[in-house]
Order: sequence, then C-alpha cells, then structure tokens
Amino acid sequence: MSVADRTDPVRDPALAVVQVCRISASASAVEPDMLAVEEPLEIRLGCDVDGCRVHHPVSITMRTPGHDPELAVGFLFTEGILIAPEQVAGIRSCGPGNVIRIDLRPNVPVDLSRLERHFYTSSSCGVCGKTSLEAVRVRAHDRVLEGHPIVEAAVIHRLPEVLRSAQSVFDRTGGLHAAALFDARGNLLCLREDVGRHNALDKLIGSQFLAGRTPLSEDLLLLSGRASFELVQKAAMAGIPILAAVGAPSSLAVSLAREHGLTVIGFVRQDRFNMYTGAERIRPR
Amino acid sequence: MSVADRTDPVRDPALAVVQVCRISASASAVEPDMLAVEEPLEIRLGCDVDGCRVHHPVSITMRTPGHDPELAVGFLFTEGILIAPEQVAGIRSCGPGNVIRIDLRPNVPVDLSRLERHFYTSSSCGVCGKTSLEAVRVRAHDRVLEGHPIVEAAVIHRLPEVLRSAQSVFDRTGGLHAAALFDARGNLLCLREDVGRHNALDKLIGSQFLAGRTPLSEDLLLLSGRASFELVQKAAMAGIPILAAVGAPSSLAVSLAREHGLTVIGFVRQDRFNMYTGAERIRPR
Repeated sequence: MSVADRTDPVRDPALAVVQVCRISASASAVEPDMLAVEEPLEIRLGCDVDGCRVHHPVSITMRTPGHDPELAVGFLFTEGILIAPEQVAGIRSCGPGNVIRIDLRPNVPVDLSRLERHFYTSSSCGVCGKTSLEAVRVRAHDRVLEGHPIVEAAVIHRLPEVLRSAQSVFDRTGGLHAAALFDARGNLLCLREDVGRHNALDKLIGSQFLAGRTPLSEDLLLLSGRASFELVQKAAMAGIPILAAVGAPSSLAVSLAREHGLTVIGFVRQDRFNMYTGAERIRPR
Repeated sequence: MSVADRTDPVRDPALAVVQVCRISASASAVEPDMLAVEEPLEIRLGCDVDGCRVHHPVSITMRTPGHDPELAVGFLFTEGILIAPEQVAGIRSCGPGNVIRIDLRPNVPVDLSRLERHFYTSSSCGVCGKTSLEAVRVRAHDRVLEGHPIVEAAVIHRLPEVLRSAQSVFDRTGGLHAAALFDARGNLLCLREDVGRHNALDKLIGSQFLAGRTPLSEDLLLLSGRASFELVQKAAMAGIPILAAVGAPSSLAVSLAREHGLTVIGFVRQDRFNMYTGAERIRPR
C-alpha cells in the first residue's frame, strides 16, 4: 500500500483504515487495510402538519457516508413522499453528522400515513415499516412503462466493465454495492456506491431527482449485485425502463417488473445475459 | 434442464420457474429458468400485556419461504425479545401462509418498548425501527466473548468449499445468501439460505435456539457475502465467537466485533484470508 493510498481516507469519508492480519499459504503479515465505512443515518422530514412545522423522524439506515442529501431525497422520492424537487426548501445536517433533515416548502402536502407506520423493522428488505402486507407495495405512479428506449445487446454486454472501472471505493475495499445509470448508448451518467444496495440506488435516484431529471424514462440502470423486489420498485418509482443486474433477480422482482412494464436483465456478462421481462427493448446482435 | 429439475419447485417453496430469454455471443433461446422466491412474511408476537393476551405485529421481512418458524424465532431472539426456547408456547402460520405468530407462554415478560418503536424502515439494514440512533445497538448480553474455541487456519480455508457444495438452492438460482454453522473442526452443523442475508442468519440462529443450543460458544459462523454491523450484532447475541465471511466486513462490523470480543475474518479463500479482530483464536499453519 502506498503512502498516497493511505492518506485517501482523510479525504474520503467512505473509507476507514484498520490493521489486518493477512494469512496466505506461505506467510502471515500485519498491515493496514481499507474498509468501507458503515454508519447509521437518521432521516427527518421538516413539514407542515395542521399549520405547524414539525420535524418528523422517518428512517434510520446503515449507510456509507457521502451523498447523504441524495440518499435522503432518493429514499423519500422512491417511498412516494416527495414528488418534485421544487417541494424541497432545504437540506441540512443536524447533530454530529449522522442526522439529515429534508425541509419541505410551506404547505407542501405530505401523506403522513406513509410515515405513521405501525410496525417496522427488518432485515435487508427495506419494506419494513409498512402497516400491513398489502402496503408492501409502494404505488409506482399506477402506470406501466412503455416503449423506449431500444438498446443494442452489445451495449448491455459492456455495462459491467464500465461500472467496474468507475467503481473506485469497491476497488479498494471489496465492500460496496453499486448502482449506475447509463444512457441508451451505454454512456455512464451517474454512479453511486454504498454498503447497502438500496442505499446505492436511493443515492443514484436522489441525485437525478435533485437535478430535475426524473422520470428517467430514456435510461438504463445497472446493479452490481442481485435484483430484489424493492430495487425493482425503486426503479419503477423513478420511471427507469430497463434494469440490468450482474446477479440474479428474485421471483417477486420479476413479477413486479412485469406488472410495471420494466425490462429486467440478469447475469450480465461480456458474452451473455438473461432477459426475464421486456425483451422487446433489447435489439439482438 | 432435466425433467427432474423442472419438477423440483413443486416440492421446494424456495424455487420458482420462469421463462427466460438467454442471450449469448452466438445465439438466443427461450427456456425455463429457476429463480429464488422472494415473498413478504409478517411476524407477530402473541403475549400478555396487563393480563390480556395480545397479538402484536412486529415486523415484515422479504424472505425466501422455508424455515419460517426459525426465521421468526431467530429474529425475536437476536432482537433481544426472546431469551430462552421455554418461553415459546407455540408457533403458527396465520392467513394464506405469509403471516407467522410466535405465542409466548403466559406471563413471560416482554419488553414491548423494543417493539413500540417510533420510526422505522429502511433498506438492507435491519436496524430500522429503532427509536433513536443510540438504540441502533441491541444489547448483546453486555458481555464480552472470551477464549475458545481455538481453530486451525486450515479449517478456515476449507469452509467456503464445504458451504458451496451444501448450498443447494444457490446452485440452481445464483440468487441466495447463505449462513452456515460449523464446529471447531470444520464440520458443517447447519446451513440456511435466503434472498436476505439477515434472514439467512436469523433462520440459522433460530434453528439452534429452538434446539436449545444457544449460546453457540464453541461454533464458527460462515457468511456467503459481506459482514455488516447487523450481522455481527446477531452473531454476538447468539454468542458465536468466530465470524468468517467470503466477502469484506464493514468498518462498523469490525468495531462492534472488537467491543464484543468476536473474531472477524474476511475474504476467506482456499489459499488466504484476512483477520480483522480476535486473531488469537486462529492457530497458523
């Protein structure tokens, strides 16, 4: 590890240095190593309720620091609480850096029933907090994505290579999920990384939401891992018509994508991929 | 795909068959493929509050069907709600199969404040639902794991190979996380799979809890992916002294492990691994 590498974490809050004992077939050595940082972030919503301003706690997520405003806004957008960037009056960090508040403009209507959930929690799913099984599905605009874009199969094959070469923190820690947005020609538009794959996608969608680019109806999404129900749901909320993943989709991811007219592609490699839904958007070689 | 394979999903609720369009460099073909099933499970707790029996909703998690009782019990145990298997009077599925209720014996004390959380949700973290950032940490018996077992490095190197050969659903779908328990000689004791890595670990720990084997103070845990804060927390709650992962740990996973005296090993391969904490439990070759 060079000195230059070792000073990186000072500039990059996503990286932490620890001492590690490396064991190999021939030797062992204690030396510094870099890990992806994981820390809790509490998201609060500043909004008007019955004419009074309240600061409503919404969520705690375990995330990699960096792009916190995008993460918070992307989460609120894909949960159906935010609709347009004009609703946001300001974003501020509170406390020692692990609380962020999204302040809405006065009189922006907020469906607090989406927040007043009666039960909660759980693991690696992101659907926790819904009041009933029926509420697991966030309403993705009640609309079906149609038509464009049409993408060459060769573009799909190239996506993981582009992602990998752009994934800076992963290269150094092996510890991060990535979500990347591409145009229909395969040009990388935006990349976000996080220890949580849902967070990586929220950061990505949040960045586009704040830039006024949603719905992302001409773009492709690439996920570094597997495609779950909730990741398809977030893509549908953002209007993304094509979701490609390096890993496998789940059964429910495929059935939700079919409902919303999303193209789902799995196991993307340089020489192959699988299309589970919406194959009409991909032009074979 | 053979006929025998295709009939498997009928017997295995963790598998679903879909039509997939496979694209390769030379050809494309539509054929059946198997995906890991992902479905919501609502966990309820039947307990006495002020002398009245209530059925308290606790959590919704997106899980792969199978071993639901173990998942529910493992979740409640690693959240600090259940302490001993004798507290459980019964476990029953309610409704159409996606609700499970854990009934406690009369007068078993339950700290409902652990359930009455004021906010909620989030993604791939499992710590959602805590009332404040301080509450992110579940109290892992306030104890530090000490001493045993001492394990040969050669045993660690072999773990992924044993896991892989035993991971039946992953082989067919590429879509599941695994958590596996081994004894100090590397013998596989129990393996559980799920689309959610926290669920896989809850199922594993729940199975051992119900068998009266917790705390698992002589065993090793192997995770098929990365090691997050919450997975270390669950291991600590179950008293597991050694956590090995095929992927990387996060920064917070390592610092929590150090607090609890857990050994954390990452990037486990046949010819190498990294020790982040508790190296004294591993005997070099």
